[in-house]
Amino acid sequence: MSSAIVFQAAQATPFMTRVRSQKPLIHCITNQVVQNFTANILLAIGASPAMVIAREEVQSFVTVANSLLINIGTVYQATSESMLLAAQQARESNVPWVLDPVAVGTVLPFRTRIAHELLAFRPDVIRANAAEILTLAGEQSSAKGTDSQDSTEAALDSALRLAEQYQTIVAVTGETDYITDGKTIYAIKGGDVALTRVTGTGCSLSAMVAALIAGAEDKLLATATACYMMKKAAELANKQFGLGTFAVSLLDQLSLLPANVSQGE
Amino acid sequence: MSSAIVFQAAQATPFMTRVRSQKPLIHCITNQVVQNFTANILLAIGASPAMVIAREEVQSFVTVANSLLINIGTVYQATSESMLLAAQQARESNVPWVLDPVAVGTVLPFRTRIAHELLAFRPDVIRANAAEILTLAGEQSSAKGTDSQDSTEAALDSALRLAEQYQTIVAVTGETDYITDGKTIYAIKGGDVALTRVTGTGCSLSAMVAALIAGAEDKLLATATACYMMKKAAELANKQFGLGTFAVSLLDQLSLLPANVSQGE
Amino acid sequence: MSSAIVFQAAQATPFMTRVRSQKPLIHCITNQVVQNFTANILLAIGASPAMVIAREEVQSFVTVANSLLINIGTVYQATSESMLLAAQQARESNVPWVLDPVAVGTVLPFRTRIAHELLAFRPDVIRANAAEILTLAGEQSSAKGTDSQDSTEAALDSALRLAEQYQTIVAVTGETDYITDGKTIYAIKGGDVALTRVTGTGCSLSAMVAALIAGAEDKLLATATACYMMKKAAELANKQFGLGTFAVSLLDQLSLLPANVSQGE
Repeated sequence: MSSAIVFQAAQATPFMTRVRSQKPLIHCITNQVVQNFTANILLAIGASPAMVIAREEVQSFVTVANSLLINIGTVYQATSESMLLAAQQARESNVPWVLDPVAVGTVLPFRTRIAHELLAFRPDVIRANAAEILTLAGEQSSAKGTDSQDSTEAALDSALRLAEQYQTIVAVTGETDYITDGKTIYAIKGGDVALTRVTGTGCSLSAMVAALIAGAEDKLLATATACYMMKKAAELANKQFGLGTFAVSLLDQLSLLPANVSQGE
Repeated sequence: MSSAIVFQAAQATPFMTRVRSQKPLIHCITNQVVQNFTANILLAIGASPAMVIAREEVQSFVTVANSLLINIGTVYQATSESMLLAAQQARESNVPWVLDPVAVGTVLPFRTRIAHELLAFRPDVIRANAAEILTLAGEQSSAKGTDSQDSTEAALDSALRLAEQYQTIVAVTGETDYITDGKTIYAIKGGDVALTRVTGTGCSLSAMVAALIAGAEDKLLATATACYMMKKAAELANKQFGLGTFAVSLLDQLSLLPANVSQGE
Repeated sequence: MSSAIVFQAAQATPFMTRVRSQKPLIHCITNQVVQNFTANILLAIGASPAMVIAREEVQSFVTVANSLLINIGTVYQATSESMLLAAQQARESNVPWVLDPVAVGTVLPFRTRIAHELLAFRPDVIRANAAEILTLAGEQSSAKGTDSQDSTEAALDSALRLAEQYQTIVAVTGETDYITDGKTIYAIKGGDVALTRVTGTGCSLSAMVAALIAGAEDKLLATATACYMMKKAAELANKQFGLGTFAVSLLDQLSLLPANVSQGE
């Protein structure tokens, strides 16, 4: 296994700037819990979100989008059909797409099967926590809900294997984020534990990945940039008053990137 | 074409006050992304929101509501049926209703067809951006997602024609809002560009229109009042820290109307 | 009728502390309007929310959850099936569960029927406003939407009867909350009227009840604790700037419990 390269803040700047200038249109088929937060986070970083979910609409819409996000957090039969149609169309039309396989595992075989069917349309990036990556790679994980009990280090081998098997990028995020294409590995420390106590930060990170890879030549660095942005915004966000203020301040800080970072470093 | 009349703040006050005293019940069938924000905005201005969406329930509920909002942002087959049933019942029971035809256009023929079917039940108000109004009027627009690239001036002719054709009020909103019944045109400038960077501000404005027209004799002025309220709240809202704080402060300012306006003028 | 006992702050402390240490997994099948707010409130008090709604998934998931919340606010045919499957499984597997019968009443017979079918699976707690409790007990109520016009005092007899009939706990909440198992009645005054002007505070309170009763021996005190937490957080929350800030500050205060209470008393 190659050793991880520490991602540098300077590598993120051109990608952050490009999103603001290009305002990519991000087609989101995501879970009901986080649709509002995801849209606001995409707007904050300069992208243009659009939640289009009807099976009659997803195929034509994905062809005009700059990238696609599929998140199976609250998947059910009807939405799974829209997801599969959209993923297939994205692959056929060379629209980059991101899979967030929320809560796959032995307790939830329905979504785990959907996730594997989606993998057949080869996402450009899989963004997940350690437990989900272990599950997709066929390993044991200790998770029950959406929170991972496993460290990202424990999932790194699985991430590398998944990346090779599906010729994709895998971002396994947690206390340290690892982003790999199966060969190079970027590592990003930092962030804040408060991120785990606001719903949708992981889901929104996957949406940010979709925004960053839209039109990017180096999708590995683009994915790492999204991870870096979330960690950095969490570090800069106000943690003085409680979780409500933190969530609002996280959005504030994302909306100020990259200006607030360059000032601080 | 008649020239536009500049809407005056003083015209808004009685309508704002009346919503607070009458607390109208607003039946909302809106998109999944903005349901929470919409409900909070309606509560902030003094109305009582109720999201009732089952096809088994919409008809009986609309008859006890003071007005109805239909927003097709995340429409799919099942919800389109609820929307059509509700719109038909609203027309039959003389319950005023507002149509927000989110993202209609050539890329999305499914919802565009639904929007035209809804128009047959003659909404009291259509609240939309320029691209959507151009589409409904059969003109070309440059939009792909939910953001309009067209100016409201470019859509004013279409708005007038739509208003005449469907004997309705059209509010086409953007940098300048135009509100017309096909004869009189009110214009409202102001607001803030930050409104375009928080999801659901347009959708929530449509809900505010539904609240303002409930029981109002002059629905044109009532609609203009809703547009004025959103622009004014955006002007008063805190724009110092970023988009998270702005969205919270927008709700704050809406919840203080009209007291915060009369103080400031 | 037994007279009500005033709930004491000291009774809440061990329950609040236990949620933070045990981080119970709360399976939520709730309405679309409040999913995000509910998840954030559960995270704020130390619980782990999971919104799993597919009929293919609810049964297996409820067996690994520590408790279940069912809220019928935006119920429709497909979700009603998931709710019934989950409630049945919860009863069979002895997973405690909470019913929030949003807006039951004569205007909405579909959901009222679903609520009665759910009652057959005997929830551990019913958390509702006065109008909903009156409806479930077969009395007349004056409500049309989700807001209750009836006082909790007027619903106390109905609450006691419901509690006996279904061998359950009933929490009827409003200006004064009453929590009863049909024999003992706890009363909690306080809170703030602003709670009625932020969407989802009642729905989220039901989710908090689910979190508090998970693994609790004394479910009556656990339920009262949840009610106390919401009222206390509302009292401590910032009401100086408007409803947007209030909602954020409510989350802040919930995330600081119980430390912020013991300091203040």
